[in-house]
Amino acid sequence: MSVNSIDTICALSTVEGRGAIAVIRVSGPESIQIVDKIFKPIKGELFGQTKSYSLRYGTVMDSDRVIDQVLVSVFRSPNSYTGEDMVEISCHGSNYIQQEIVSLLLNNGAKLAKAGEFSQRSFLNGKMDLAQAEAVADLIMAETASAHRVALMQMKGGFSNELSKMREALLEVVSLMELELDFSEEDVEFADRKRLRELVDGVYAHVSSLADSFKLGNVIKNGIPVAIAGATNTGKSTLLNILLQEERAIVSDIHGTTRDFIEGFMNIDGVGFRFIDTAGIRETKETIEIIGIERSFEKIKSASIVLLMLDSERADLFEQGVNQLAQVIDRENQQVIILVNKIDRIEELLYEKNISPTTVYGTAYDAINDPIESRYAKKIVEDFVAEIESLCKEHKIEPKGIIPISAKGLIGIEQLKKTIFDSRGGNLDNPHSTMVTNLRHYQALKDAKESLERVTQGLDMNISTELISQDIREAMYHIGSIVGEINTEEILGNIFSKFCIGK
Amino acid sequence: MSVNSIDTICALSTVEGRGAIAVIRVSGPESIQIVDKIFKPIKGELFGQTKSYSLRYGTVMDSDRVIDQVLVSVFRSPNSYTGEDMVEISCHGSNYIQQEIVSLLLNNGAKLAKAGEFSQRSFLNGKMDLAQAEAVADLIMAETASAHRVALMQMKGGFSNELSKMREALLEVVSLMELELDFSEEDVEFADRKRLRELVDGVYAHVSSLADSFKLGNVIKNGIPVAIAGATNTGKSTLLNILLQEERAIVSDIHGTTRDFIEGFMNIDGVGFRFIDTAGIRETKETIEIIGIERSFEKIKSASIVLLMLDSERADLFEQGVNQLAQVIDRENQQVIILVNKIDRIEELLYEKNISPTTVYGTAYDAINDPIESRYAKKIVEDFVAEIESLCKEHKIEPKGIIPISAKGLIGIEQLKKTIFDSRGGNLDNPHSTMVTNLRHYQALKDAKESLERVTQGLDMNISTELISQDIREAMYHIGSIVGEINTEEILGNIFSKFCIGK
Repeated sequence: MSVNSIDTICALSTVEGRGAIAVIRVSGPESIQIVDKIFKPIKGELFGQTKSYSLRYGTVMDSDRVIDQVLVSVFRSPNSYTGEDMVEISCHGSNYIQQEIVSLLLNNGAKLAKAGEFSQRSFLNGKMDLAQAEAVADLIMAETASAHRVALMQMKGGFSNELSKMREALLEVVSLMELELDFSEEDVEFADRKRLRELVDGVYAHVSSLADSFKLGNVIKNGIPVAIAGATNTGKSTLLNILLQEERAIVSDIHGTTRDFIEGFMNIDGVGFRFIDTAGIRETKETIEIIGIERSFEKIKSASIVLLMLDSERADLFEQGVNQLAQVIDRENQQVIILVNKIDRIEELLYEKNISPTTVYGTAYDAINDPIESRYAKKIVEDFVAEIESLCKEHKIEPKGIIPISAKGLIGIEQLKKTIFDSRGGNLDNPHSTMVTNLRHYQALKDAKESLERVTQGLDMNISTELISQDIREAMYHIGSIVGEINTEEILGNIFSKFCIGK
Repeated sequence: MSVNSIDTICALSTVEGRGAIAVIRVSGPESIQIVDKIFKPIKGELFGQTKSYSLRYGTVMDSDRVIDQVLVSVFRSPNSYTGEDMVEISCHGSNYIQQEIVSLLLNNGAKLAKAGEFSQRSFLNGKMDLAQAEAVADLIMAETASAHRVALMQMKGGFSNELSKMREALLEVVSLMELELDFSEEDVEFADRKRLRELVDGVYAHVSSLADSFKLGNVIKNGIPVAIAGATNTGKSTLLNILLQEERAIVSDIHGTTRDFIEGFMNIDGVGFRFIDTAGIRETKETIEIIGIERSFEKIKSASIVLLMLDSERADLFEQGVNQLAQVIDRENQQVIILVNKIDRIEELLYEKNISPTTVYGTAYDAINDPIESRYAKKIVEDFVAEIESLCKEHKIEPKGIIPISAKGLIGIEQLKKTIFDSRGGNLDNPHSTMVTNLRHYQALKDAKESLERVTQGLDMNISTELISQDIREAMYHIGSIVGEINTEEILGNIFSKFCIGK
């Protein structure tokens, strides 16, 4: 599809903020002319005559006012990312300069690029198909080696090639069948039904295996889902923040703060995990919280690993916590890790409540130099773990670990990470064949699979060639929609709006 | 100074994080060879033969494993930023890819660049002098038009030219005097003392005016200092967060949370303001807080504008707040703005305490449809402002404004911003001549000024030519140190370590 009389667009393509350098991209028929108005090369020929794939050093000027000294790269159509004339301005990375240069470009006739608009143009100009363009966005998001590999393979066209082969096979089938239709009055059978059936079965098997790869592909792309469950105020958000090492979730001392699910991604030894904080489960009358809690249960069910957070200050709630978990958990398909949080508080509590360790445990200590308090605190924690173990047995839950931690005090975090890693299951490390990682592709493949099921049924039942051929065309349509051979404005807008600005 | 047998360095030069594209810089004698080991161009001549100032498209490979498809720019010595051979790799902006490419470069012989090392090499290779290199860092930090203009002028060498002219003038003086020394036995006077005195006076005036420009220059570069003062828990950190529109300060409900000064920069209509949150002033036994409070006083004293935060829920502390301010404030040189925070709470408080508005104010309301509560709340706020006005009069404080606000409820924030802007004083908008913005330069200028004072005294008192000439050489040394004509490893390390990585 070729694109005529189109706008020239521009955007900051590097991460926003202050850095050594920043890059502003310009694409479209007027790219070179617009940049020529604001850029004066230090030496050499006129800017308009700059060769493709070469760089110029010079000054960005707003009339007489110097904005910055920059490097400018020129790419001429069709040999550029978008296929259009393109210019990249590499400037000093101050926020002020970035804004000024973008403003200058806008004042001189460029439009601000929408998210993904550069990639959309690349697709529209036939530089890559839709699946490849989507892979660019995935590639940028990839945080692990396996996610990177899957996205890169898709971007390089591996997936598209497989799809194209399937469409060719189906085209062969449909051509033979339709040829037959043209001669229908003569009752000639051009197509060997057995051969047709083999071709369709081959495509069906391929489509099925691609659709099946989505479950693992999705985990590779988005990480293994890990839900953090437990009563309010047990420290779930604090733990999430520690694990993600930033203030992602809002932590507060007020019960029931976390009403929305906050997801964060973490890379443990090259495997991606997606953390889900859930609203604390407790009796409540607040509508928002009730909704939150219902969604908590759903989210817990969708996780591969569930971390149940218990509060060592509230040992009276251990039973309730394990009970609630027992109601939600899928013992076959979900891994459970139980955390006993705030263990750093146990010593303090013994003092505050003025309880002597002997009152609690009735044991004497052996030597003067013993760190008695921490010894008894340790004993209490051991008893907690034993109690939780027996609760789990009662409910036939087999946790991967019962780990005493202090999210605030950073105790037990490394052990927790290791246990999470060990609970990952499956082999995510070496995806070898093509993987489907995109929900849109998965849905198209499922639709194609359904059409092909009707085709095989039709062949088996000797249904009219006309109807079968229609189902094959439907399967081809669904497969083609993945690479964008069939598309609507709306679908495209939807796909590219998820890209980052400047790509 | 030329540099031989030096390492090849590399670093990510764009802001860290996930973006459309990222740029990794490589500089040093082995740049092209190292990149050649990991980069395969799609077409055209061998990478090693790539022309200077041109771009290649291709694939970054780790042996057989594809890492990314990238654009590579090549710059050959001496025509590059550093003056060395340089390569810039423009890759997809995923964190994973950025890390992998940097690792690959390191594995193939590059060293990770230290902060500012590219600019340091540029300086060492004579591409720019020290003041120009420092201006690069300032340019990246510049957030306002005026800060940008000052940094850009310095980067382009305006400041360096002035310094160089002064050194030339002093060199003329010292040459004439030292020529005299050579002929001292013959008692010849080559140098007209009046002419010498004029030259020295000219340089002295210039040095003085540059040193004097530092006060304004510093404000242009770093922003006008605004301190937020007031008792604990009045909402200072919340206000700071609102003003800076991000979670810069940690806000909590626990008294005395803000122990460190959190500075944030804000651009109001092109003028930079630097906000300083101070530890709340209150009686305390905690050592950390005592230190914090002492430093609070210092910080308040160093500010041009002081915002005093009062809490409308604690009207009993208004007097104490104004009293404390009165002890610290410099009525000549500091502007005061008083804020009455949490005004959204007044209505709620009236209900909570079950106080009917008439009990408080003894007035009746006129019409049924009147929004009575808010009318009375408004009256209470007006009374608060009047009370604070009279407290200020007592202490001879003339605030630029007494503004009822709610930091949490976003009430009064725009009025506050306007009042801050109106309190800025001075003309920061149009710096025309050279400005000193760097503390190191300022100190060197002060040192030069002292030496020159000794020179004029010496000339006046007819001190021996030898001693005067020594003082002139000292002044030249100090001036020269600004552009880096005289420097030590230690000074250089110190200067460049403040740069961002990749520059």
